[in-house]
Amino acid sequence: MTSPNPDRRSERARQAILEAALELCQQQSFAGLTMEGIAKRAGVGKQTIYRWWPSKAAILLEALMERAVDTLDFPDTGDVVADLRTQMTLVVHAFNDPMFSAYSRGLIAAAQSDPEIAAAVVDTVIKPRVDLCVERLEKAQKSGDLRADLDPQDVVELLYAPLYYRLLLHTRPVTEAQVDTILQLTFTGVAG
Amino acid sequence: MTSPNPDRRSERARQAILEAALELCQQQSFAGLTMEGIAKRAGVGKQTIYRWWPSKAAILLEALMERAVDTLDFPDTGDVVADLRTQMTLVVHAFNDPMFSAYSRGLIAAAQSDPEIAAAVVDTVIKPRVDLCVERLEKAQKSGDLRADLDPQDVVELLYAPLYYRLLLHTRPVTEAQVDTILQLTFTGVAG
Repeated sequence: MTSPNPDRRSERARQAILEAALELCQQQSFAGLTMEGIAKRAGVGKQTIYRWWPSKAAILLEALMERAVDTLDFPDTGDVVADLRTQMTLVVHAFNDPMFSAYSRGLIAAAQSDPEIAAAVVDTVIKPRVDLCVERLEKAQKSGDLRADLDPQDVVELLYAPLYYRLLLHTRPVTEAQVDTILQLTFTGVAG
Repeated sequence: MTSPNPDRRSERARQAILEAALELCQQQSFAGLTMEGIAKRAGVGKQTIYRWWPSKAAILLEALMERAVDTLDFPDTGDVVADLRTQMTLVVHAFNDPMFSAYSRGLIAAAQSDPEIAAAVVDTVIKPRVDLCVERLEKAQKSGDLRADLDPQDVVELLYAPLYYRLLLHTRPVTEAQVDTILQLTFTGVAG
């Protein structure tokens, strides 16, 4: 799924850096991760890293997102609820993957006291996903499957926020059944 | 709003401890907070603190929740949407209060790597609020204002999760307009 890179040496270095960031983060936690440590383990100069990424959070996010790229593609079978279920179920699986969930929670935790990490999380993780979901929802508005008078961004939030809520607040496990409930209640409405 | 305490000296000590926890947390951040430091500043023995609270997170949570008690009461005017709007708006104000929002985000961040804090956040902050909201929603089910076939807990999540989502992911500000959007979409449904 990575786009072809004309410079294979650069691509090899890039992959080594991403791999080093993931390994070091697993060994030392996000707080212990440094640009120096990543450069040393990847066998590249620190300047190479700084040329490509502004921060350790940006590297780790790129590494995570590249490995989780299958959760990004948004299907379009013509049935918007089925497509949302497919994509949200991938997020449920990611949130139940111990490594992915530990990295995600660590980054979001770090984002609470570091605005640079917060911005990187939004730019790298949240925004690309929201944009693709919005695109799919706009098609659903055109086909009449979704109310035309609403802002798709608000719908994305309604659908995905409960998954993040359980991931971060630990109230209940994130499950496929939760996805069905969210879709059922959101599409039909809860009014009596 | 505090319940009367027969032992005024205990109540004075309790208040001193809560105040000390809040002040120290502001000065040193949550990570720098210790039971020893709180005891010293409150002028009580460490054993007194351990008799009442299992952890620094529990103290800070009690202090925060006591000061935020007005967001807990759930109105019942007979109009469930209006009552939810009233209560959710109080949460919006709390999330926009710099001190309250910094403490909340710090505790939720700490909860990501500390299961004891995670449990304290659920027990002290989340569960009492969810329970009161569920109670109000059950009345709405009896009066026919909310679908009888749904689990009120799921509705609480749908309504409140988007507020936490913006607080923790920093995608957009938490606003009163967001509350209107959430209520409108959730009650009416988004299907075309």
